[in-house]
Amino acid sequence: MKYAFAKRVRHLQSSAVRDILKVVGQGDVISFAGGLPDDELFPMKGIEDAFARVFATGKGSALQYAETEGYRPLREEIIKRMNEKKGIMNYSSDEVLVTTGSQQAIDLFSRIMLGPEDYVLTEDPTYLAALQVFHSYEANVLAVDSDDDGMFPDDLEQKMKQYKPKAVYVVPTFSNPAGRVWSLERRKALIQLAHKYNVVIFEDDPYGELQFLDNEQYTPLAALDDGTHVLYTSTFSKIAVPALRTGWVMGPYQIIRMMSQAKQANDLHTNSLSQQALYQLCTNFNLDGHIEQLISVYRSRMEVMVDCLQKADLPELSFVKPRGGMFLWVELSERLNTTILLNEAVRNGVAYVPGEPFYAGLAKKNTMRLNFTHATPERIEKGINLLVEVLSKKVEHQEHFFV
Amino acid sequence: MKYAFAKRVRHLQSSAVRDILKVVGQGDVISFAGGLPDDELFPMKGIEDAFARVFATGKGSALQYAETEGYRPLREEIIKRMNEKKGIMNYSSDEVLVTTGSQQAIDLFSRIMLGPEDYVLTEDPTYLAALQVFHSYEANVLAVDSDDDGMFPDDLEQKMKQYKPKAVYVVPTFSNPAGRVWSLERRKALIQLAHKYNVVIFEDDPYGELQFLDNEQYTPLAALDDGTHVLYTSTFSKIAVPALRTGWVMGPYQIIRMMSQAKQANDLHTNSLSQQALYQLCTNFNLDGHIEQLISVYRSRMEVMVDCLQKADLPELSFVKPRGGMFLWVELSERLNTTILLNEAVRNGVAYVPGEPFYAGLAKKNTMRLNFTHATPERIEKGINLLVEVLSKKVEHQEHFFV
Repeated sequence: MKYAFAKRVRHLQSSAVRDILKVVGQGDVISFAGGLPDDELFPMKGIEDAFARVFATGKGSALQYAETEGYRPLREEIIKRMNEKKGIMNYSSDEVLVTTGSQQAIDLFSRIMLGPEDYVLTEDPTYLAALQVFHSYEANVLAVDSDDDGMFPDDLEQKMKQYKPKAVYVVPTFSNPAGRVWSLERRKALIQLAHKYNVVIFEDDPYGELQFLDNEQYTPLAALDDGTHVLYTSTFSKIAVPALRTGWVMGPYQIIRMMSQAKQANDLHTNSLSQQALYQLCTNFNLDGHIEQLISVYRSRMEVMVDCLQKADLPELSFVKPRGGMFLWVELSERLNTTILLNEAVRNGVAYVPGEPFYAGLAKKNTMRLNFTHATPERIEKGINLLVEVLSKKVEHQEHFFV
Repeated sequence: MKYAFAKRVRHLQSSAVRDILKVVGQGDVISFAGGLPDDELFPMKGIEDAFARVFATGKGSALQYAETEGYRPLREEIIKRMNEKKGIMNYSSDEVLVTTGSQQAIDLFSRIMLGPEDYVLTEDPTYLAALQVFHSYEANVLAVDSDDDGMFPDDLEQKMKQYKPKAVYVVPTFSNPAGRVWSLERRKALIQLAHKYNVVIFEDDPYGELQFLDNEQYTPLAALDDGTHVLYTSTFSKIAVPALRTGWVMGPYQIIRMMSQAKQANDLHTNSLSQQALYQLCTNFNLDGHIEQLISVYRSRMEVMVDCLQKADLPELSFVKPRGGMFLWVELSERLNTTILLNEAVRNGVAYVPGEPFYAGLAKKNTMRLNFTHATPERIEKGINLLVEVLSKKVEHQEHFFV
């Protein structure tokens, strides 16, 4: 039988890159491709204790169907944490929705906001799974011109004026894939324009707590706004563990309520045993101490990767040293296509994600995303050397350019 | 700011009934409204042991990001179980997708299949949250004429011919809300027509294992089909616990693969710690023995409810005695409107779900759904008496009809 799928599945096709990377996961290749935290650093004892505390109550009601909005003590803990750590003061626990990972927050927001006639503005490059979601609701995605400090206000304003977008999607702190941090000035400009043109900002902040420089401060858009124009999402996946699929989104009540109703149709509610365990983790475990340890390890791995790349001294290779997060974004000679190179790199024992799928607009095909949080320093060194080997060969044999 | 939501949210509005029932959850009203299993019967020790077994491995990788398709040992266990218990033999573990509850299976299926130009056929009445999902993708839902044995093949054929539906959604065994069981003949007729008109059948079977009569056999559509036209979904929510939000869907590979891709955009994957724990529960705990205990308790509660209703001997009250599942569907005098009556019932200390929102077509407003699995026998007796009080008053004072 030939199945007649809906039009929107056009954007759900598996990509060649994903297929290659799936193979990588099974072999002995050193992979900088996944956006994975290091599982050796997971707070296993803390998580186990947290579940034990929930089971210790012995109450069946802990495992019953639960509120779509999320476990209330966890929502209150999230509000408290976002107050203290992020300066986000505009929301109460009724304006937080617990989601099945922050991916679901992006999806639910799109579901209630976007249709074929709507526009979304994004950075370029940006999180590729967000692009897939926007496209899956048949929205039109437009990239705004930007540099390492964020979107250019003049291009942003021009596009807001011309396209009347429903939303602007941004990862302003340690962006995926480019590792960018927006300047305060650009953050304020975005909020001002969002107010002027009545556009909702969707701020995706999964990496914000993984900050490497103590003396800097990156204020979330949600803390700069007056509580009307910014939706903010983050997750326990990077600071605790991904397996529990627990994130949250906070923002204006009307939007959160509509997203809750969409969530009810989507999956009723997020795993409530895990929500209760995460509440126990937040209140009975030194989560901030754990995050400090993560930062220390991830920062030193980032330094190893940066050193290796600098030592290699490849002509036309450039990157901005990450100030946090999980990714290093590399730009190569314009004559190199990283999508085509990927096969050769994998044969040489190393993998990355080519930059192309991260672009909403015209892709820079000479870019790649390298993750520095999952591999050990030894494997980072070995992997970067394997990668440099492949790249050097291309640079030496100029007849092979464009491959 | 006025937020410009997408057109599809029209169907996500909260209902008056839901608002009343939300209040019920907080008070001392005896509620037959929720579709809740009894949390006193949850296998707490089994679940706790299952999690302990996963933690005992001590491996961080157990809590890392995981495959969208689901934890492979669990998928294999599901296949084995569906082979043995249900006679569903057509699928391998590559044709199972683990979902965040079976609600997500309905949602993902709709997402890849349905748009504004598409038709879905359903029973009438049917699962109201499925109707909400179909509407949220702007599909057109049509009810097929049916009786207690299932859809009438002639009306089904006529509607397949005329509307060329993408799918037929059915709960053929212990349906929600009506507690119906389709006859084998009607099941076969549906499959034959699905083949003839190239329509996919979505079989929702959350209650199938809660069977009260030992000597009957209800073969799932997925076991009667050749593996091309039936998607089958079920869940651990009714046989284990709902909090873990773990269900599954199995069917033709092309559809399952497309649903996996939609799931990746939706929530990446289902909580994998819970998946591993459920695998441990399936393999190290007497799940079938537990289900037998559930059946025994739920059957006796159903008997109590049936007895109380029969004793009340209200004129024009009728129902079919449930052969399994969680619900008893009551039809009253046509002059009574259960939506309007709900407020008065709640004031008298008892709640139910009015039949109206379960209808895709013209609603019978004199119907209600009563859940018999959550309340104790004592509270069932008390609650039914309170309900009968309200109904009797209406029947006595004929001037109050239609209220």
